[in-house]
Amino acid sequence: MVDDQAQGDTKRAFVRKPVALDRRVTADGASGIRVEPNRYRLVIARACPWANRAAISRRLLGLEPVLSMGIAGPLHDDRSWRFHLDPGDRDPVLGIEYLGEAYRAADPDFSAGITVPALVDGTDGKVVTNGFAQLTLDFATEWREFHRDGAPDLYPERHRAEIDEINEAVYHDVNNGVYKCGFAGSQEPYEESYRALFARLDVLTERLATRRYLVGDSITEADIRLWVTLVRFDSVYHGHFKCNRSTLSAMPVLWAYARDLFQTPGFGDTIDFEQIKQHYYGVHRMINPTGVVPLGPDPSGWLTAHGREQLPGTPFGTGTPPGPPPQSERVPPLTP
Amino acid sequence: MVDDQAQGDTKRAFVRKPVALDRRVTADGASGIRVEPNRYRLVIARACPWANRAAISRRLLGLEPVLSMGIAGPLHDDRSWRFHLDPGDRDPVLGIEYLGEAYRAADPDFSAGITVPALVDGTDGKVVTNGFAQLTLDFATEWREFHRDGAPDLYPERHRAEIDEINEAVYHDVNNGVYKCGFAGSQEPYEESYRALFARLDVLTERLATRRYLVGDSITEADIRLWVTLVRFDSVYHGHFKCNRSTLSAMPVLWAYARDLFQTPGFGDTIDFEQIKQHYYGVHRMINPTGVVPLGPDPSGWLTAHGREQLPGTPFGTGTPPGPPPQSERVPPLTP
Repeated sequence: MVDDQAQGDTKRAFVRKPVALDRRVTADGASGIRVEPNRYRLVIARACPWANRAAISRRLLGLEPVLSMGIAGPLHDDRSWRFHLDPGDRDPVLGIEYLGEAYRAADPDFSAGITVPALVDGTDGKVVTNGFAQLTLDFATEWREFHRDGAPDLYPERHRAEIDEINEAVYHDVNNGVYKCGFAGSQEPYEESYRALFARLDVLTERLATRRYLVGDSITEADIRLWVTLVRFDSVYHGHFKCNRSTLSAMPVLWAYARDLFQTPGFGDTIDFEQIKQHYYGVHRMINPTGVVPLGPDPSGWLTAHGREQLPGTPFGTGTPPGPPPQSERVPPLTP
Repeated sequence: MVDDQAQGDTKRAFVRKPVALDRRVTADGASGIRVEPNRYRLVIARACPWANRAAISRRLLGLEPVLSMGIAGPLHDDRSWRFHLDPGDRDPVLGIEYLGEAYRAADPDFSAGITVPALVDGTDGKVVTNGFAQLTLDFATEWREFHRDGAPDLYPERHRAEIDEINEAVYHDVNNGVYKCGFAGSQEPYEESYRALFARLDVLTERLATRRYLVGDSITEADIRLWVTLVRFDSVYHGHFKCNRSTLSAMPVLWAYARDLFQTPGFGDTIDFEQIKQHYYGVHRMINPTGVVPLGPDPSGWLTAHGREQLPGTPFGTGTPPGPPPQSERVPPLTP
């Protein structure tokens, strides 16, 4: 997503706009857009938690050979996400400099938020969908024909009601909750969001104290969605968004849970803390006017032992972990 | 001090201006201003670390009966420190609404920073000195006739060279260092100040790992000066000023040292975390445009056991702790 699309209300609370091209790509093509190998390009940004979900799902499910990935850089100009990390500042497959070009290819009058993740049709360069909430569910279900051997079931039928319920609460209080804290224009909506955030983290702490994953016995969509916010917590949400009852690293259960997943193939190998900090601190000038990017926190703690192998649950159930990421998608190692 | 008196340089680094009325009040009056009981009023603000030094020294030395204290509130308008916590928004002794009135009484053309601490002559309402660095040293030495029984020697002759040396390093890297981090207008001076700050904290950590206080066997001026920055670290410097390698509460030696002093009469009883946060987040709109004040961190950890009684050193040497603060100067109890 683009992170600064606030709509004012009378209390100056942050209200996230709905995505504008919320369409589905399905196995049978009943939605009008059919799953096909080597046709679409997933555009993400390392900074963005909503895009991070898609990058993790693609890794866990082994979709890399059939779904290529473009990576927008962390910094915006007034035209939003752009490919400033690529040679010539252009996405090497789509050939575009700004992600907005693919949105306007789909709709010449497009004027809504230019967001990641975006699935772009490589045959015509048009954005097919930026529906972040449905995208990963469809990766888990509609793209099943192209999953790797040993891929986990990230959205198992028998647990869907429970996953959906947790996802709904986590979305409002945590994923979007940190934005509501950070983008609140006045004290009252900030305090309301802060209290909801930490109340929810307390509930999740209790749940995760005795089980390794949120739902069932292995990693699901629910873990992916919670984790993309937790992994950014101390780097950006704690200070920049004023989510500062304590750091994640001072919440023992959630910190161990987050480290466990960080060290699981498919999670930590999608994270670039420098890009995360550059984006939030560099782009949100309305809350960080100087654009100075903090040097901290020291991220080396992410690699320390977490001890959660003792708890009930195994990461991939009867499946296997994914192999290493393609060379071109590797993130830099952690440095203190 | 007023906290936002930056002078730009080519790198947009923060450079603290010298105070403008840096005069001394001495026992023999050789400076032109003589120590007298019940003549001067010490004006502080709970928010301000430079003023906090003076409030602590006054408590430890028991100067309350001879030196009254006025408390400017945490919030400024464009005229700097004002008495918005007092009945009628006026200091009850000086009768002024803005501290600037006392500066202009001393110098009708006064145009420099309106800072706390300020020592004001009650007989004519003029600021006598705002020289924060010398003020507490003079409390410890020039005001000796009025010290309470059992007052500690906060600036013992045999340790002055060592205290001065530590104070100098702590001033540049820590006390003023956090401001240099927070008010840096660009990346380079921020990073330089951040590295100097944490390098200094590492050196201090090593020193304090094996001794209870910085110099000699008991509390001195050196401890007071370091502590006023440490006590504000997690509430304001970590997030608001981007001093975020880690929180103080994640630095075991310094955190225990800071808690030990917090729990020592004369230190924690001068602290109002709400006023500290209201000031920094409410006044520095150039780094916090919305003025939203964070709800965190939870301060209850300050009252937990610190275990430093095991180390060599006793708080007051052969002296005694001060009694409780006067009723009118009590701060609210900690609330999570």
